[in-house]
Amino acid sequence: MLNRKAVVVLSGGLDSTTCLGIAADEGYSLYTLTFDYGQRHARELRAAEQVADYYQVADRRIVKLDFLRKIGKSALTDFHLSVPKNVHDGEDIPITYVPGRNLLFLSLAASFAEAIEAQAIYIGVNALDYSGYPDCRPQFIQAVQKVLDVGTKTAVEGAPISLQTPLLHLTKAEIIRWGHRLGVPYQLTTSCYEGAEEACGECDSCRLRLRGFKEAGLVDPIPYRSL
Amino acid sequence: MLNRKAVVVLSGGLDSTTCLGIAADEGYSLYTLTFDYGQRHARELRAAEQVADYYQVADRRIVKLDFLRKIGKSALTDFHLSVPKNVHDGEDIPITYVPGRNLLFLSLAASFAEAIEAQAIYIGVNALDYSGYPDCRPQFIQAVQKVLDVGTKTAVEGAPISLQTPLLHLTKAEIIRWGHRLGVPYQLTTSCYEGAEEACGECDSCRLRLRGFKEAGLVDPIPYRSL
Repeated sequence: MLNRKAVVVLSGGLDSTTCLGIAADEGYSLYTLTFDYGQRHARELRAAEQVADYYQVADRRIVKLDFLRKIGKSALTDFHLSVPKNVHDGEDIPITYVPGRNLLFLSLAASFAEAIEAQAIYIGVNALDYSGYPDCRPQFIQAVQKVLDVGTKTAVEGAPISLQTPLLHLTKAEIIRWGHRLGVPYQLTTSCYEGAEEACGECDSCRLRLRGFKEAGLVDPIPYRSL
Repeated sequence: MLNRKAVVVLSGGLDSTTCLGIAADEGYSLYTLTFDYGQRHARELRAAEQVADYYQVADRRIVKLDFLRKIGKSALTDFHLSVPKNVHDGEDIPITYVPGRNLLFLSLAASFAEAIEAQAIYIGVNALDYSGYPDCRPQFIQAVQKVLDVGTKTAVEGAPISLQTPLLHLTKAEIIRWGHRLGVPYQLTTSCYEGAEEACGECDSCRLRLRGFKEAGLVDPIPYRSL
């Protein structure tokens, strides 16, 4: 099909950038949507811009979500909470969980997709590494697909938007291997919660990333402070 | 139960104000959420403030959604489209449909509800008067409830947020009769798409409202220009 469009939720991190590479590989015209929801750092936003440049996307939007900062209750948006240093692997919901974040991201992506008549939304949610996040689970994604099937104009008109979550069941190593095959520019991505120019190598996110590269038998191209 | 909290999506219109009255009658502590999504008028926002004052809500938030204006494609957010004057009663999706609006509203309401640990979200969607809006249909509401059941922290912890849509299957006259019994301050509400101090009496929304009051055997307390 000519000129199929995909909206890709792009944080500038490893997973979302891999998603963008996958959507590009599928032949979609790319429309990125990046959220500024009061993160501690602008580093992610800069990475998202560089990744969007790299893929020469058709259009990009950065949406400021001050609301999430105002309602707080998460270490990623509330400056008074400290970011945990240990890899999360239990059943509890981690402190870095932002209430309703993925639902909000997908809602905005759906609005954007409807407006530009896109066929697909790509989001890099992953059910393995972040098992503690309720909005990263397969049943959540299925439920949102159902919402898109019944609640959007394009669906009523016979062309529902397809929610694509290619990374949902993959390990970090599998994601990295797939992206590596597709030539995803991991040197432009950022994952560290601290958001400094050099990654800390110690936070949840850095450790997951480093372990992923190691298991994939590849070298992470970004600089680390502590390695 | 003591101190049950409800987030009420409040536009300042007749339906959402009735919802607020219903939530108050149910004994909830009230938290209103009002959206400024680039409407043509500030009249609605003022009405929402006055209604929130009237009900002495525990907290209120106004969320600016510039994003919806930027993606346009709706007469309510795009200044270049004219608002239709005739009551919508067909199968087509009206030009006043804002892509993904209710999903976005409910996503933000869910974030707010999670943050304050609310038990319920009230939204005044109606499947009868606005049959052309895909995101006002019962199957859409059911699908969003499912998302809340599987995708929120409170649900995982055993206390899912209940999505309340008391007006879903009511006619405008039934809504008005219910609100009238509860003492809902309809004199503070606004419905006209034009957003002037006096309602036009001619747009879709004015005509639905006037017909509703007439069928309910009541007099609409707001001033109309053309009557």
